[in-house]
Amino acid sequence: MVVNDQKFMNHALFLAKKGRFTTSPNPNVGCVIVSNGIIVGDGFHSKSGAPHAEIYALQKAGKKANGGTAYITLEPCSHYGKTPPCVNALINAGIRRVVVALKDPNPNVSGRGLVQLQKAGIEVVYGLLMDKAEQLNLGFLKRMRTGFPYVQLKLATSLDGKTALASGESKWITSLNSRKDVQKLRAQASAILTTSVTVLADNPILNVRWTDFPNKLKNIYPKNKIRQPIRIILDSKNQVNPEHLITQTNSPCWLIRPNPILQHWSNNVEQIVIPKYKKRINLIILMIQLAKRDINSILVESGPTLASALLKLDLIDELIIYISPKILGEKARELINIPELKKLKDAPKFKFINIKLLGPDLRVKLRPLRK
Amino acid sequence: MVVNDQKFMNHALFLAKKGRFTTSPNPNVGCVIVSNGIIVGDGFHSKSGAPHAEIYALQKAGKKANGGTAYITLEPCSHYGKTPPCVNALINAGIRRVVVALKDPNPNVSGRGLVQLQKAGIEVVYGLLMDKAEQLNLGFLKRMRTGFPYVQLKLATSLDGKTALASGESKWITSLNSRKDVQKLRAQASAILTTSVTVLADNPILNVRWTDFPNKLKNIYPKNKIRQPIRIILDSKNQVNPEHLITQTNSPCWLIRPNPILQHWSNNVEQIVIPKYKKRINLIILMIQLAKRDINSILVESGPTLASALLKLDLIDELIIYISPKILGEKARELINIPELKKLKDAPKFKFINIKLLGPDLRVKLRPLRK
Repeated sequence: MVVNDQKFMNHALFLAKKGRFTTSPNPNVGCVIVSNGIIVGDGFHSKSGAPHAEIYALQKAGKKANGGTAYITLEPCSHYGKTPPCVNALINAGIRRVVVALKDPNPNVSGRGLVQLQKAGIEVVYGLLMDKAEQLNLGFLKRMRTGFPYVQLKLATSLDGKTALASGESKWITSLNSRKDVQKLRAQASAILTTSVTVLADNPILNVRWTDFPNKLKNIYPKNKIRQPIRIILDSKNQVNPEHLITQTNSPCWLIRPNPILQHWSNNVEQIVIPKYKKRINLIILMIQLAKRDINSILVESGPTLASALLKLDLIDELIIYISPKILGEKARELINIPELKKLKDAPKFKFINIKLLGPDLRVKLRPLRK
Repeated sequence: MVVNDQKFMNHALFLAKKGRFTTSPNPNVGCVIVSNGIIVGDGFHSKSGAPHAEIYALQKAGKKANGGTAYITLEPCSHYGKTPPCVNALINAGIRRVVVALKDPNPNVSGRGLVQLQKAGIEVVYGLLMDKAEQLNLGFLKRMRTGFPYVQLKLATSLDGKTALASGESKWITSLNSRKDVQKLRAQASAILTTSVTVLADNPILNVRWTDFPNKLKNIYPKNKIRQPIRIILDSKNQVNPEHLITQTNSPCWLIRPNPILQHWSNNVEQIVIPKYKKRINLIILMIQLAKRDINSILVESGPTLASALLKLDLIDELIIYISPKILGEKARELINIPELKKLKDAPKFKFINIKLLGPDLRVKLRPLRK
């Protein structure tokens, strides 16, 4: 039945993906219940506090779940969290076989759910379409396994590696298509990370603008379900103030500072104290703290200095570069400021993992090749 | 019979493409003779002086050509050149219908062949798959229509638009896959254009290395059929000398100079006098002269200065950029030296026309968007 196992797991993965804009800090999970070769129930996890995928699917299936097979993209939970354990629900429903794509990434509980199912006499298959399930939860998995968030660095460049003219003019290097695509990246990120330099220069809001979503996305992700990512600003010199637009919008705004200052901040603003290292915010400590605050994934939208610092510390998991087919020339502003390399072999190296044309622009995604 | 017309013309185009490494300065042309729905003869033009595609196809068809249809990717010639006119051969063979993709691009003779066929009572269809036929002969068509060669500018860059470290180290930024791909570009070009700066710095040969061809290409293009492109060197200060390897190989090497100097050059070297304009070789006059010398297409392999000068004069028809997934940093050497832009709208703009992964590298082709 391997062929059908794949089919049903693919359907569970398809369902899991539906939660990608809203589940943070939880993982995306889908579940399909099959009885006598027919899907009798399915569901996905939509957001923190809502029932898990298994519960939705079991509810839909009702008595038909009895004797059936459950396809789940992530190992079912065996502990009481905000909701009761799914393992119990599966056992109580009379499920006879459970097929799981991915084990729970938390090393302390990984495999425990599967063992409980086996102890209850249920046949357990594990590892089917594991890679696809990984791709769906890069942020959640990295946080659980390493205690660091998954960091995407977004860059926009000309063909010759420039971001703006020497004068600073950069509105807009990339096309409307690319800027709409960035809205999707923001909508999927737990948080956006930028610096006070960017806030002082551009006074951005850095929220998700539903109106800029592509139509396809508007249909599957209605305006009233928008989850705004947390905006995080590195502000080592306490330069951001309550006048800046980013502090005034409804969604959370975290100011990262070596020491907090009293100001009349609106309720959404929180000051988080992170010590400095060599005159700048200690980025390693920052990332650990952000992961502790349940930040799975971060989209970095900043200038070349933060980008370079993150690269140097090997804190970047993915580069996303929007290439505009223009030439700005050698006097224009640089994409990345890294110190002079003595040897070509010392250059940071990457691997292209995704290439896409977006209107006139090209979007490339890359993963660092770690030494 | 439109469906079959397309099928047979596609076959003629497929055959025409077989000549792409050897026909320069002639066009790539394919011909298919069909009688009662069956291909009775086909052929392509292989190189200057060899019979035209129509003659090969008619010879293969023999008497079966009588009453048949000829599919030809380019209007058949009506004049005596190195070979007698193909129009006569088609008439004499009793062809009843001729389907042509593209008219002769030479405005003085364009359409004359078609008219002669019609006068002989042959049905003529023109314009089928014209775009595909255009793509096969970008160089020949541009030279015939405008008196300028088709110029491809090859660049190799890091993700951040750099070509080499500040120290000059650049061996190799791109991968073996990309370097093999460049051999294909060279093999298809009428000529390679570089500068004395490159010759003095790297002492390159800039010929086609058959051993570096991909295996697929080795099979269709055997070593003994190699046509070496002409190597053209801008040498405004008479700096290249008979010691440089590029002057010593068998294939032609043209030194472009404001005035020739007597030296013991090997037979393959020719000095071509082109006047200067603002201390540099006048590139407009150069291009016109090269087209007059039957250069259809030029692959530019040079540093950023010539690249910028060609861009500024709007002499580039295609950018081919090999992007290596590395970051070299702001101190590294620039891809293009163009003067500082005052406005973003003044930036040279392009259109992506082809994207391909080559091992670890990405190759992008672009066409300039002319104002």
